[in-house]
Amino acid sequence: MLPEVGRAVAEALGEFGNPSSIHREGQRARQMVERARGQAAALLNAKADEICFTSCGTEANNWALRGLFAANRRKGAHLVISAIEHPSVSLVARRLELDGAHVTILPVDHEGVVSHDALRAAIKPDTVLVSIMLANGEVGTIEPIAELAEIAHEQGALFHTDAIAAVGHMPVDVKALTIDALSFAANQFYGPPGAAGLFVRQGVRILPLLEGGGQEHGSRSGTEGLAAIVGLGAAAELARRDLPARGPRLRRLRDRLRQGLEAKLEAVRVHGSWTERLPHNLHVCLDGLSSESLILGLDEAGLAAGLGSACNSKALRPSHVLKAMGLTDEQAKGALVLTVGVPTTEAELEESAELIPRVAERIRRVSALTSRA
Amino acid sequence: MLPEVGRAVAEALGEFGNPSSIHREGQRARQMVERARGQAAALLNAKADEICFTSCGTEANNWALRGLFAANRRKGAHLVISAIEHPSVSLVARRLELDGAHVTILPVDHEGVVSHDALRAAIKPDTVLVSIMLANGEVGTIEPIAELAEIAHEQGALFHTDAIAAVGHMPVDVKALTIDALSFAANQFYGPPGAAGLFVRQGVRILPLLEGGGQEHGSRSGTEGLAAIVGLGAAAELARRDLPARGPRLRRLRDRLRQGLEAKLEAVRVHGSWTERLPHNLHVCLDGLSSESLILGLDEAGLAAGLGSACNSKALRPSHVLKAMGLTDEQAKGALVLTVGVPTTEAELEESAELIPRVAERIRRVSALTSRA
Repeated sequence: MLPEVGRAVAEALGEFGNPSSIHREGQRARQMVERARGQAAALLNAKADEICFTSCGTEANNWALRGLFAANRRKGAHLVISAIEHPSVSLVARRLELDGAHVTILPVDHEGVVSHDALRAAIKPDTVLVSIMLANGEVGTIEPIAELAEIAHEQGALFHTDAIAAVGHMPVDVKALTIDALSFAANQFYGPPGAAGLFVRQGVRILPLLEGGGQEHGSRSGTEGLAAIVGLGAAAELARRDLPARGPRLRRLRDRLRQGLEAKLEAVRVHGSWTERLPHNLHVCLDGLSSESLILGLDEAGLAAGLGSACNSKALRPSHVLKAMGLTDEQAKGALVLTVGVPTTEAELEESAELIPRVAERIRRVSALTSRA
Repeated sequence: MLPEVGRAVAEALGEFGNPSSIHREGQRARQMVERARGQAAALLNAKADEICFTSCGTEANNWALRGLFAANRRKGAHLVISAIEHPSVSLVARRLELDGAHVTILPVDHEGVVSHDALRAAIKPDTVLVSIMLANGEVGTIEPIAELAEIAHEQGALFHTDAIAAVGHMPVDVKALTIDALSFAANQFYGPPGAAGLFVRQGVRILPLLEGGGQEHGSRSGTEGLAAIVGLGAAAELARRDLPARGPRLRRLRDRLRQGLEAKLEAVRVHGSWTERLPHNLHVCLDGLSSESLILGLDEAGLAAGLGSACNSKALRPSHVLKAMGLTDEQAKGALVLTVGVPTTEAELEESAELIPRVAERIRRVSALTSRA
């Protein structure tokens, strides 16, 4: 969380009103929720009443798939996703399949890009919904969503995009993308966990996932997590203000990190598209090393690297994204996701560019020793 | 939120680790989540791994009904609820009905109590699940859950109880209640909104509602709202420590309020069971007045009263709970839920006992004038 966001959250913690109550504290809490809704809408170029808050990105994705599919079943039973979706999309698609849906999983090329032709070939008159992510948080690739959405719309299918890795890191305009629904999550753009949202274009039918007291105009029941929602709003406001400067700065830092690694390491491969890429993301594979020992070694040295999604971190299996891009298990073994952030300084960056090769070298030496023994 | 809870939440806000990450910050966040899980389990006399966190009570109820029903469909398609359930139970039951479930809605008596005989008559060999709330937050009545659960179990049906209004206000022991699943929500017992949970007894099959990264051992995916979960744990710890003293004290304050109102107001009816009742709840109807003008009048005077559930507050319709108890719309019109809380002082209580009759009298005068004009 950025300091400004933290302050907004801490302040909202002092509010004890329930936004759905009619008395005074309730009304003040309601205003805070609506202000955050406006801030989120402004970041996405949406209308405020097209934004619905959820508790996390996973809920937003689950809801989008289940809710859009169920509300539009009259059109058919066909659903299209890509091979690199987050499990909160792909597992729900599989669940819908058990309930009678037909699911097509689109392949990606070696850079992780979904092709127009693949979608055009897959889509049918009975396709209800296409869900393809805006950007992949692991390999950084940005998908050509506006073009893909156009193909879906030509066949009257709805288009949802999981923009959780993208929002706050690149300009995201729901009108320009022409999509029908879009998921986002505050904790992915310097906001707190516990608040996320789904944009649903006006006029698009969706069934609720959570039913009850009728909050969020009946589309998402449940007592609002006020402080987290206020934090989401503050983070959205900052992103909107800073994005024009934030992107280029992060891109420069990230590019410098790549340069540093390539200068010091021989066997380093960079994955994902380099032109259509999240500005803060660097995905590398260090041949002959394992992600696990790299991440633990870097952690000990004070650097938090990852495998793309924290959700995957425990399993430590070869990523389904890298597999879909055609990498073998062996090639995917030394994968490392390095992200630069708003708080990252030039000095930290230079330090990391020194540290990573040093840790990699040490692990290489140790594993050479142990494999010889 | 109690001050101790607020401090725990504020402290947890400073943690930026993701409990599902393998690096150091992630591990610390994980420990905080597991500590809160232990605290919640201790309050309910459950095992830690029988507790699963959700984002709100509504999610816990939605999940319990959908997840238990879907995972145990082989037994049949029959579902039993009561007429006084929260919409997060009753609306989900209705949704399941659209998907092929048969739903029986049990009546309650004039005190809001579900009878054993009614359940015994309703339950069938193909009953999958019975869901009856532990206590009604609006009229305060506590249901005979252990006895009702026994009847369900005799027929091999599962038993879920919505204990959201009860937990933290009365002793709740999942073993003594013999139920299979139980919902609770932090914001109902001096914890923050944004954290709630579902107890699911070991060995009971349930399908996830939210699928994705596999958090909460795969039963509830989604990034954990760390600060709110820590707050839930702190509130559970306090409730466990203070409950023996908290209950009698609140009961005494509440009884004093009833006395005060009955001494000053002629037409005041108290609803719900008086013996089997939440200690902090007083539900009254003031004849000839409307809930709306009462709540607004009290709000102006600095007192927050309600209609039982904030969710209902906007609609201001006669409550389904009062209707199920046999009240006419006219009789339900002046309903008012008054709750005393841990922070309520004796002085505040005496003040309220004076204030409410005064506001009621003023409204009566004004409405007599306007109806004459």
